[in-house]
This record gives sequence, C-alpha cells and structure tokens, in this order.
Amino acid sequence: MSNKAIFTVFIYCKMKKTKFTPISELGEHNLISKITSPFQLTQITTKVGIGDDSAVLSDLNEELIISTDVLVEGVHFDPMYTPLKHLGYKSVVVNISDVCAMNAVATHVLVSISISNKYSVEMIKEIYEGINQACKNYNIDLIGGDTSSSMSGLIISVTIIGKSTNEFTTYRSGAKPNDLLMVSGDLGAAYLGLQILEREKGIFETQDLGQPDLTKYSYVLERQLKPEPRTDVIRLLREKKIKPTSMIDISDGLASELHHISKCSSIGVKVFEERIPIKNTSRLVADELNLNPTSCALNGGEDYELLFTVPLELHDEVREIPSFVEIGHVTSTGLVEMVTTTNSVVNLPPNSWDTFKHI
Amino acid sequence: MSNKAIFTVFIYCKMKKTKFTPISELGEHNLISKITSPFQLTQITTKVGIGDDSAVLSDLNEELIISTDVLVEGVHFDPMYTPLKHLGYKSVVVNISDVCAMNAVATHVLVSISISNKYSVEMIKEIYEGINQACKNYNIDLIGGDTSSSMSGLIISVTIIGKSTNEFTTYRSGAKPNDLLMVSGDLGAAYLGLQILEREKGIFETQDLGQPDLTKYSYVLERQLKPEPRTDVIRLLREKKIKPTSMIDISDGLASELHHISKCSSIGVKVFEERIPIKNTSRLVADELNLNPTSCALNGGEDYELLFTVPLELHDEVREIPSFVEIGHVTSTGLVEMVTTTNSVVNLPPNSWDTFKHI
Repeated sequence: MSNKAIFTVFIYCKMKKTKFTPISELGEHNLISKITSPFQLTQITTKVGIGDDSAVLSDLNEELIISTDVLVEGVHFDPMYTPLKHLGYKSVVVNISDVCAMNAVATHVLVSISISNKYSVEMIKEIYEGINQACKNYNIDLIGGDTSSSMSGLIISVTIIGKSTNEFTTYRSGAKPNDLLMVSGDLGAAYLGLQILEREKGIFETQDLGQPDLTKYSYVLERQLKPEPRTDVIRLLREKKIKPTSMIDISDGLASELHHISKCSSIGVKVFEERIPIKNTSRLVADELNLNPTSCALNGGEDYELLFTVPLELHDEVREIPSFVEIGHVTSTGLVEMVTTTNSVVNLPPNSWDTFKHI
Repeated sequence: MSNKAIFTVFIYCKMKKTKFTPISELGEHNLISKITSPFQLTQITTKVGIGDDSAVLSDLNEELIISTDVLVEGVHFDPMYTPLKHLGYKSVVVNISDVCAMNAVATHVLVSISISNKYSVEMIKEIYEGINQACKNYNIDLIGGDTSSSMSGLIISVTIIGKSTNEFTTYRSGAKPNDLLMVSGDLGAAYLGLQILEREKGIFETQDLGQPDLTKYSYVLERQLKPEPRTDVIRLLREKKIKPTSMIDISDGLASELHHISKCSSIGVKVFEERIPIKNTSRLVADELNLNPTSCALNGGEDYELLFTVPLELHDEVREIPSFVEIGHVTSTGLVEMVTTTNSVVNLPPNSWDTFKHI
C-alpha cells in the first residue's frame, strides 16, 4: 500500500461521490463473497476458514494467544481524514500488536463490520483491501467475521489469534527490580499526527482551502494513519535468545503502560526523560503545535512500540540492537517515576486516553 | 435467571430512572474491573484470561472452533423491549449455537461492548449479569473483550471458542443423497415472539396503556428473548454415537439454512410441510397475528435449533430421540423443495433476513 493516500486524506469526501453502490443492492451474502474472495489462506493450522458456522483450526502450537479490539467511527477514527484502506489495515495491525506484546506470533484474524447506509460497496471493498494488505504483510489468515448494518457510522471489531509456547509467552507480570526498561522505537509521533489531522480538519471545514500540503508532516501522519506492529522485534528477540521478563505494547501512552507493568509485576519503574526516544521531526511538529514532546510520548498513545523489561545481565545483548532504547530500570518502590531533564524526580500519573471521558 | 423479566419488558424505561451512574464517572479501567470481577474461570485450558494484552490458552484439543457475531441496537435488538440481562445472555448463547452447529463444545468467549452515554454503569452491569449467567449455564470462560464508547446506542461483539476433534467436527458440506433431514426442535416461535413485542411496542407508544399482560405469549417471547443453544443435542449425539453428515443452526430461518446445506453439500433437499415442527401455542399466536405458521418457521429465524442430516441407516437410532424430528430427506436434484400439506411440490426461496435490507 502506498502512503500517497496519507497526503490526500481531505479529498476523501469528493472521492466518495465518484461511485456509490448501496450495500442493500448487493445483499449480505453477495457482499461477503465480494469482500472475502481476494483473501488467501496460508497458515497450515487453518483447516476451515470462512463459509461454515465457525472456523476450524487444527495442529495447534502449545499455546494460543487471543485478543479482541473494537474501532468505532467518531470515537477511534474520523472518516474525514482516515483513508478507509488505512483504517482496515490499522484495525488488523493494532491487534497484531497485542499478540506481539505477548512475545507471540499472530496467525489468524476474524473481522466484523457494522455499517450505516452512508457506506457504499466500494467503500467496504476499500476497508477490506487494507485488511487484506495487513494479512499479506504479516502472514495472517482471515478466518471469520460478521457483517451487519448499524444505526450510525462504522464499527470494526477484530479478534486476533496467535501462536506461542510456554517458553516464549511474556506477560505484564514478570518484571523484577533492577531489570532494564526498554522501548523498541520512538514515541509521541502518532499523537502528533492526530493533532495535525484535527487542525487541518478544522481549517478545511471553516475555510475550505482545498487539499492541504501535508508533506512535511509525513512521518507523524504515517505513524497515526498506518502504524506497523513490531513483529520484527519479536523475531529479533528470538534470534538473540533474549526472553523479556515482562512486555506490553504502547497503545495508550508510555505512562499508562508503565503503570500496567508496575501494577501487574508489583514493582516500581524509573524512567529518564532524556532517554525517551522522540524523533526530531516529531519535536518540530510538537513545537509548531505548542505541545510538550515528552507529554506526547507519555500520554499520547497509538505508537504501537513495545515496552519490555530484560534482566540486567542482558545489558550487552540488548545494547547491540540499534532500535532498542533503554529508558530506565525497574525499582522496588512500587512507584512510576521519571527523572526529568532538570534532574528532579516526578511521579507519573497514568494519564491514558479513556474512551469514556468523551461520552 | 428468572423469566419474570420477560413479562415486564415495557417498564424498562421507568426502571432506568431509578439509578443512573454515568460511565464517565467510573472510567474505563474501573468499569472493566467492576463488570468482570464476578466471572470465574473453570476451563483447564484457560492459562490467562482478562488482564494482559491477550488471553492465553494451553493444552488444547485437537481442533479449535471459532466464530464471531455482532449485535447492534436498532438492528438486532430494541432496548425498549429487550431486558438487558437477557440481551447479554442472548449475545453469548447465539454464539454457542454456532459452535454447536459444528458438533463441538464451546469453552471460551470474548465480549466487546461499545456504548453511548445513554447507558449507565447499572445497565452495563445488567448486560454482564446475563453474560455471566450464560457462561455459568454452559461452562464457558470469559477470557477477553474490549469496552469503548459509541456515537449511538449499544453494540455487542462476541467471539466464541470451542473444542472438538476431527472425529466429531461436522460441516455444512457433508450431506449425501438419501440422508435423513432432521431438526432438533420446534420452529417459528422466536419470530412470532418478535412480532408480539413489536405490536405491543406500537400500542405502548401510541396509547400508553401501561404494562401489558403478556403471559399468554410466554413461550414465543421466551424463544425470542432468551433462546438456549442445543448443547444437549450435541451431548445426545455423542452418547448415541450418531455422527451427522452435515449440520447448521437455524438462525436465519429454515429455508435459508436448507439452501446453505444444499449449496455447501452440492445436493438437494425435500422437506414435508406437515412435518415441520411448530408448537400449537405458536400456531395460535400466528393465527392471532394473521401470519402463516409455516412461513414463520421457514423464514422467521432466531430459533437456534439444529438442522442436520444423518445417513438413512441411522433411522432407528434418531427416531428414538424424542425431540428430534425428521422433516424430509436429501435428494440429488440440487433443489430445495417442500411438499405442501396439499401435496404439491414447491421450490423454497432462501428468504432469510438480510441485515442490509433494513438500511
């Protein structure tokens, strides 16, 4: 999938007018055939995919990993600036990220969509093109789902299945004092991308200046609209024989995830503000928006990087891996603390995004 | 769960006024703790349930059965006459029914809900009480889910997992000419229950005569509001060593399911109108509503009985089982035919309920 769509997000409404086949014209069964026919099954464990009352998996690994997530229009995404192909793609990859967070490998997915009559067959096809692209990129079989109408907007519900073994599966609960606290990549960009989109939407709606030039925001927009799960990190950890003691993916913001690790492992953590990886391009966008880059990293969310802990003795091994950043260590205090750039120690509140604050 | 609620469905709006804690007051994490704490895990394969990025299952059976379904307010249910506890219950059991339709045993479930701000903490608790009751009744572990806000109404998304072995798993595709065509119980009642609820809603809204006396409709209302999956049939088939050649659950109506079996198995079916099991109490309601009882059975749906085929030589064995009804047989014509009570043969169209006809 090209990222060109990222820079044409605001002409989406015009695109919609080119062709609009109402879903009622096709009917549920024909719609399902149309959207699922391009999907191919590649996992040997898929005995039966779509087409019966349930899917059937066989010859499974020792452990099965399962997670589910719902994306709701107006809550998790704004169709005005979210290309539907990217939305389909993102709905799958954020779930893959949950499997990565268990140090496991995603294998199968079920996707249900509920859609109002403002959505056409062409638009649904676009969503499924994105879903298919994610399945292809990450070698995942689509094995089921449900389609239904909705009273308002689009709801995508995804259940992901992954494989693991007792040896590899990693929980939030295994961190020990003195463990190193690592992240797999830079933070804050996805949130900044969202702020740019919201700003441009406001301008577009009030001034209608046409399609804005968003090229200089390409990195933060891509992080928001087309995140990628860190399956490469999982592979790397296995290659290097590094077993994290705890792991979580950063979907709600670093601060919130640190609190999860702290609570589940009954430990404290200390992070160093200066070590939190934030790209220069993100800092520039934060400056433009008058936002504190550290706050974006701590509370923004949707970065889908992995946050994990490793025993101190693996220090040399993890240091060798370029994208891994040691942001702090595990303590026995029970507190989630940050040493600021001015060398003061502050407690970090778990200011994550709460879906119910918005209703 | 008592069925008393069935007869008090129209006072639901008044109930809501008694206590209303906004969900935003509690926040997402507290809401999840509150609604999931009464759930107990009993399946030995559940290694980790709710509380990490994903659930983990281990020591699995040879085959894993997975299905997913979405219930949308205003499309699949009307909150005016659907008690929320029953709704939670139904959302799980309709998925168990999909596992039964594979001749398998449901073991785990993931439930996601998206809710608008017209729903209170008390209402969500009611939904989860119903979900818990279904989990207890059918020995199923709740192992995951997602909660989020929605722009409009309530959406419940359920993924069910079941266990099976190659020996037992039954598909829609195995029916052979001359096989006997069986159903596990009476049909049409759930649809008739829905018609009664719709009629009473109309009266309630226009005339406000207070709570109507629905006692005489108790059977059809129960079939609509609190269906039960036929796990007993699956047990019975195993006890009697009867392996159906094909199986499906009747969620969209007998005619639609016959077409599925016919298409998937590349065979025809011939059913006899006079053998289609319809309870007298359902016939009386159909008469009152001026509906043809056979049409209700063929096209109504939501009965959640099992439709299955068995080899002719098992005739004596299946005949012994009281609730099983032989409604016809498999043919090689490729047609879905019905011999009417006046002895004419008609082709049955797959007039199932299509979600997209309504948008």
